[in-house]
Amino acid sequence: MLSLMTLDYIGVAVFAVTGALAAARSRHDVVTFAAFAIMTGIGGGTLRDLLIGVPVFWVHGSGYLYLYVCLLAALAVWVVGERPWRTKALDWFDAVGLAAYAVLGAAKAFEAGVAPPVAVVMGTLTATFGGIMRDTLAGQPSALLKREIYITAAVLAAITYVAAVTLGLDARIAGAIAFLGGFAVRAGAIARGWTLPGFTKT
Amino acid sequence: MLSLMTLDYIGVAVFAVTGALAAARSRHDVVTFAAFAIMTGIGGGTLRDLLIGVPVFWVHGSGYLYLYVCLLAALAVWVVGERPWRTKALDWFDAVGLAAYAVLGAAKAFEAGVAPPVAVVMGTLTATFGGIMRDTLAGQPSALLKREIYITAAVLAAITYVAAVTLGLDARIAGAIAFLGGFAVRAGAIARGWTLPGFTKT
Amino acid sequence: MLSLMTLDYIGVAVFAVTGALAAARSRHDVVTFAAFAIMTGIGGGTLRDLLIGVPVFWVHGSGYLYLYVCLLAALAVWVVGERPWRTKALDWFDAVGLAAYAVLGAAKAFEAGVAPPVAVVMGTLTATFGGIMRDTLAGQPSALLKREIYITAAVLAAITYVAAVTLGLDARIAGAIAFLGGFAVRAGAIARGWTLPGFTKT
Repeated sequence: MLSLMTLDYIGVAVFAVTGALAAARSRHDVVTFAAFAIMTGIGGGTLRDLLIGVPVFWVHGSGYLYLYVCLLAALAVWVVGERPWRTKALDWFDAVGLAAYAVLGAAKAFEAGVAPPVAVVMGTLTATFGGIMRDTLAGQPSALLKREIYITAAVLAAITYVAAVTLGLDARIAGAIAFLGGFAVRAGAIARGWTLPGFTKT
Repeated sequence: MLSLMTLDYIGVAVFAVTGALAAARSRHDVVTFAAFAIMTGIGGGTLRDLLIGVPVFWVHGSGYLYLYVCLLAALAVWVVGERPWRTKALDWFDAVGLAAYAVLGAAKAFEAGVAPPVAVVMGTLTATFGGIMRDTLAGQPSALLKREIYITAAVLAAITYVAAVTLGLDARIAGAIAFLGGFAVRAGAIARGWTLPGFTKT
Repeated sequence: MLSLMTLDYIGVAVFAVTGALAAARSRHDVVTFAAFAIMTGIGGGTLRDLLIGVPVFWVHGSGYLYLYVCLLAALAVWVVGERPWRTKALDWFDAVGLAAYAVLGAAKAFEAGVAPPVAVVMGTLTATFGGIMRDTLAGQPSALLKREIYITAAVLAAITYVAAVTLGLDARIAGAIAFLGGFAVRAGAIARGWTLPGFTKT
């Protein structure tokens, strides 16, 4: 079975690949590839750690391994080329990362002793901030500007996890349910174009 | 009389409303409303707390109430619709928030023991950073790109507060004077279009 | 000989001038000049300190002197006008700041006990983040979007310093070599338009 730690590295790698792909679209050099991969891969968790006031996860001890994961992801995109990633496969990987990170982020915040609503915000931030930074710095519209369900899936996964744990469920079971719920909603957005109704009052 | 704490919640609510309105203009869904309301409502104070090295105000203890204030503000815009806020009333509320936050931010920094010029920067950041983040992420020109007096009003309120307290004035009186000064300058910008002269040397 | 501290102030001043010039290009007022000068001058070091978990360098003690350096730089651009800075001279000053900051940032991170790859990231961030923030908030394409070698020079200086110190070289000699290497690469970009090959696989 995948351990949480493995899931964590997979999450970083998936987001790092999306960062490198953003650099690939603009035909950037290998250093810019690495910069985008690192920012996107570790951005969300970095903001979470700063906000809850714990040491940033990749800065101390063996955390530098996360940097290597990002560099490997950047290298993979550089060597393999952009085309193989253009399939829907990446969207699905990203959906796995999004749901997993929302749960992991909420869980880490919870362990640091924050209140449930704060844990929900932290889970959502962990899952989405790296991508928002990637798009903003690449001059692309971020998830904050698109119609498709994305942030909502992270919010849902985080809320489900926090609610289930608060109600006394075992953290691993809560995590599994929350992950599947968030992933399902994002899957609906990828496969069927799900959106929430937009604001219409004028 | 309004206590400082109440003023604080009003400030968060006012800025959260401006965040939700930014989402409304782009016809976003309710989750994006909440995201913009939270970012704008608590962004400035968050950066201030990170920089002066104190726990972020909404993360610990009962700080989550600030999140609820932001959600209520987002809900209010969603339910009431965009039109009622289009009056100048919002500009005036925002002016109250701007001046109040510049004073509160400078005061919190001062209590943490920083030097006067640092307290001025912190007050200014607290009052303006949420709005700058809102506009940048919404793809709109931020206060950093506009001519109208906005940041200047925050700087003035923060300088006045810091100078008055440094000169030995009672903090509450200093706060009242600084608030009124900052508010008056911003009021002049709203009502009469006050600007500072722009750079002209070429 | 220039001490490290002097070099530090010169670095802040140089970056602050580039911030004020960004404000000058848009004909902004003096407060916006100061805001851009401060953000650009101290942005990189601020992010570095937050990430490694040490007090932000300009917030405590006599750190406010860095703010005065930024204000003086903004004032210099305002008074002298934009034209005298339009020469290549500024590019060369900026190259000095870039290489010096990459070394200083990596050194400060190293002293805080982080692993070598983390120190490289911190050096790079210190040298480049202020400028990236300046360009993003000014609505200009940042170094992350340009072809010219810029971030690469910072990465190279930081890697050289970290590798040399790890191999047991005296920190001052390592710093000098790293500075010269980073500066030389950036000099090649300024004088001869050096670029790295961009991504071409489709």
